[in-house]
Parts: sequence; C-alpha cells; structure tokens
Amino acid sequence: MRLALFNQGRLGIVDGDHLVDVTEQLAQGSTPGASGPLHQHIEALARGGAVDVDVSNCARVPLSDAVLEPPLPRPGKVVGAPVNYLDHKAEMEYTTSVADLGVFLKANSSVIGPGQDIVLPYTDKRTDQEGELGVVIGRTASHVDAADALDYVFGYTCVLDITVRSGEDRSTRKSFDTFTPIGPWIVTADEIPAPDSLDLRCDVGGITRQRTNTADLIFGVADLIAYTSSVMTLHPGDIIATGTPAGVGPLSHGDRVVLEIERVGRLEVGVDGSRATPYDQRPGRRAR
Amino acid sequence: MRLALFNQGRLGIVDGDHLVDVTEQLAQGSTPGASGPLHQHIEALARGGAVDVDVSNCARVPLSDAVLEPPLPRPGKVVGAPVNYLDHKAEMEYTTSVADLGVFLKANSSVIGPGQDIVLPYTDKRTDQEGELGVVIGRTASHVDAADALDYVFGYTCVLDITVRSGEDRSTRKSFDTFTPIGPWIVTADEIPAPDSLDLRCDVGGITRQRTNTADLIFGVADLIAYTSSVMTLHPGDIIATGTPAGVGPLSHGDRVVLEIERVGRLEVGVDGSRATPYDQRPGRRAR
Repeated sequence: MRLALFNQGRLGIVDGDHLVDVTEQLAQGSTPGASGPLHQHIEALARGGAVDVDVSNCARVPLSDAVLEPPLPRPGKVVGAPVNYLDHKAEMEYTTSVADLGVFLKANSSVIGPGQDIVLPYTDKRTDQEGELGVVIGRTASHVDAADALDYVFGYTCVLDITVRSGEDRSTRKSFDTFTPIGPWIVTADEIPAPDSLDLRCDVGGITRQRTNTADLIFGVADLIAYTSSVMTLHPGDIIATGTPAGVGPLSHGDRVVLEIERVGRLEVGVDGSRATPYDQRPGRRAR
Repeated sequence: MRLALFNQGRLGIVDGDHLVDVTEQLAQGSTPGASGPLHQHIEALARGGAVDVDVSNCARVPLSDAVLEPPLPRPGKVVGAPVNYLDHKAEMEYTTSVADLGVFLKANSSVIGPGQDIVLPYTDKRTDQEGELGVVIGRTASHVDAADALDYVFGYTCVLDITVRSGEDRSTRKSFDTFTPIGPWIVTADEIPAPDSLDLRCDVGGITRQRTNTADLIFGVADLIAYTSSVMTLHPGDIIATGTPAGVGPLSHGDRVVLEIERVGRLEVGVDGSRATPYDQRPGRRAR
C-alpha cells in the first residue's frame, strides 16, 4: 500500500493513477498535529498491516490533479547514516563507517515534499544532493536484534539528505530548512520484504549522478535499525535515512533533482539559489 | 510562573511549596501526544504571557508529595551549542566556537525528568555531565535578529547534556536514552528578563564541578536563537541547550547530579551504571 499526503493534509491511498481519499475514514476522532494526519496512525497500521477502511465511498482524485506533500511533515526524529556505502566511503576518503561514526540527526523542521524547492544557503559553499532509501519506523524499538529489526518498519520512502560542505557539525550542515525532501509517499513494509536489494538512481539536471543497489549498503536496513535502537529508542514515525552512495555533487539554482528507488517511487524537487549569501556573511560569524 | 508536569501527566503551576493542578483548566478539548500536555499550549501561553485560568477551584498538591516529570517529555527538537563558554573551550582544547562549529542536535527520545537515572552505556568510556541553561522556544522563529530573539522565548529550564567521550558523531554520543535530563519545571520568560546573568552550579556526588554565570556565554541566549533560526526554523516547544562551562567530568554508578540555576530551579538526577557494557561489545562493531 502506498500512503500519500496531498492537498493540504488529505490522506490518500495510491491506486494506479488515482488517490483514494481516506482522510475521514482514518482520521475519525483524531487531531493531527504538526507531525501530520498519518503519524498517529502509523503504529496501529504497522500492527494491522493494512488500512481496514471501506473505500467504496471515498473520493478518487487523479494523481495528476493532486499536490503531493511530505507524507510525514515533521517526523519525530530524522536519523542519518554518515558513511554507509563503500563507494561513497572511498569518494569522501573516509576510513570509517557507522560502526565508528555512529549515526547523526537532522532537524525535523528540514522536511519538504515532492515538487518543492531545496533552498541553497550559500553562494560559495557546495550544497550536495545525497539520494537515499528512507525507513519509516512503525513500532517503538529499543535494543532490537538485527534478526527482528524489520518487524519494526512501517514502510519506505525516498529521502534526499541535502548537505552543505563546510566545517560545522553534521546536524547544522544537514538541517537547513528544505534540506530533507521525502516522498512521494510511504510504501508499507509488506510490499518490500527485502529492502536490501533495491535499485536506486539519483539524477540532477537530467544527468545521472548516483546509481546503486541497496545491496551495497555497509549497514543494511536491519543492521542500521539494530544499531540505532541500541543508542536511542525509535518511535513510530521516526525516519532513518540509510546513507548515500557515490556521486554526491553540488546543486545549482534551477536544477531538478530526481530520486527513484525501485518499488518505492520517484521523488522530484527543484533547487532555489536565489536567496543564497556568501558564507562569510552568515549570521553569528565572529572572530573568537 | 513555573510550569511543571507531575504524577503521570498532570500539569501544575508552582505556588510556594505546592503545585496548583491546572490540568483540566488548561487541557480542555486538547489531546496531548508524546510531547506532553504542555507542548500544544506553549505558543498561546507565550503570546499571552500567563495562564489565564481560575485557579480557585484547582487542587493543591504539596511539591514534596508530587513526582515531577520532564516538563516536555518529547520536545520537537533539542538543539545544543558545542563550545559556548571560554573556559570549556580551553578545557577541551577547542580552537573554535558556535561561529564555526554550528549547533548539534540531540534525540528528543533522550529526555528524562527530575529524580530519574542517567543510564551509563559503557564501562570503559567516559560519560560526562554538562550542566546548561535550557531555552524553551515559544513562537515559531526563522531568521530572527538577535535584538528581537528573546521575544521568541517561552521560558527556561535546567538541562543536563550528558555526553559519551568516544569517536562517534555528537548526535550519537549525546542521544542515548536518559542523556537529556530537563526540569524541574519551566520558568516563563517574563520572570527572567536577563537570561545572560544567571549563576549556574553543577555538583556531582556532593562535589561542585561546574560554577559559572551565563554572562560568560560566548553566544548568549539571543545570539544563539538568532544563529540557530538562521539554519533551522524553531518551533514552540523546541529546546536549546546553551552550552556548558568548564568542569565536565565522568559519571559513576550511584552518583547524584545536581544542577542549580539562579531563578530557574534545581534539577537532581541519579546515575545507573549497572547495565554498562564494554565499548568493544557495542552493537554494530565491525572491521570495515
């Protein structure tokens, strides 16, 4: 099942080239907060495995008429894996991986959805695309074994982990507003029993920059959940970005970024460099 | 006004040595989520400046009988300032500050409240206390000027930014469950017009380790909000830990950690090392 948010907070199930609007059916008695109308249902959906609603009376909206939004507008946590493909490890001349570097966190305020723009902060520092498989947690996970870890997954989505190449902490360089495009929807885990064998391709400006298969992950999805849950409890609606393969590169004003992951979907966003400023004019710069 | 959470999600206003239970008065028609019953009222309270409820019919609970909880059990974001006192900068031999390092993020799942225990993960790696003034954001803040930044503050609380000294990303080293004790309550901003002149003291095992005044912050509260909001939009209920002075040091099983900040309060927690394991037995360790 593919679950999408669209048209200002409507919740839909993708059915071919239509969205079945299940907002009323699923949202009865609930009051969605900043995390969106899907968030509070994730745990129940993860346990049930399917949306048990009568869709016969639901409105059907052509996908081409819908404005898709990030399926989780403000996730509880956004966890990232810093060096998790061998080719990216070589490309960045890293000598370590998640085993030594741990995971990092991105601000949940950096999430945007399909069709929105990544806003570049600096005219003179690289802002790179990093295309990644995103894992959406479905059940509270603490110290889980890798063998059981996939039981805690609600579903999968495309994640662009946008990153400035400068000297700040990763959390700063990766947390500017608009730096975490996700979508176009969440595919529930039952449709992807083997998340470590998915083709992934990321194009920028019509040129393919990244092409890999999640089989090349150093820490696969289950290992990554097991490791992360040994540090921090994962809650329903948390997202893990599983890491990026080789081919990261700078974004420019007007670029289109397309991330396509097998069985998951195709996420496309724009790039807006019109508000970028020189790095040495950033707020807070000072000598000491 | 001091706002506390107690006795499994009750919301109280501290009045001398009692708590005035305003749960029903403030929570009418609202459904608290994981972020707690106070979170969704913060923006309204920040604009109004006071809780406008009739407290004459409210129950009064002696503070000594109440079990205090973290005032925000799961904040939207927990932002930290890595090197923000000159003496700590010297102690850690850092050559830079927030201006170059940016800010980091802690997992919101790491929050605990007064009287709970910090759980040490490792037998053979230092886990240090870092006592800090915490700022609770009251209004959505994006690219705000330092001159206006205090208008966006809801209140202040004590924060212990617990940190493992190992090689991982800060977000990992600072995000283990229990690594962000906060409390004992939130003091609203109207009571602290000058947050950059507060005495702060942190004792471990009865010995004073940290003693400073927030006047010695490199980035004061307003500068820190301005800088952070230039990177990521701050939302009501987000917390900024403003950084720690010199005197960080290792915690041991059975320690009591007491953080006291002038006009804010006194936060005391325990330390549990009974579940610690050797670092080289951590999940995820591997050669490559």
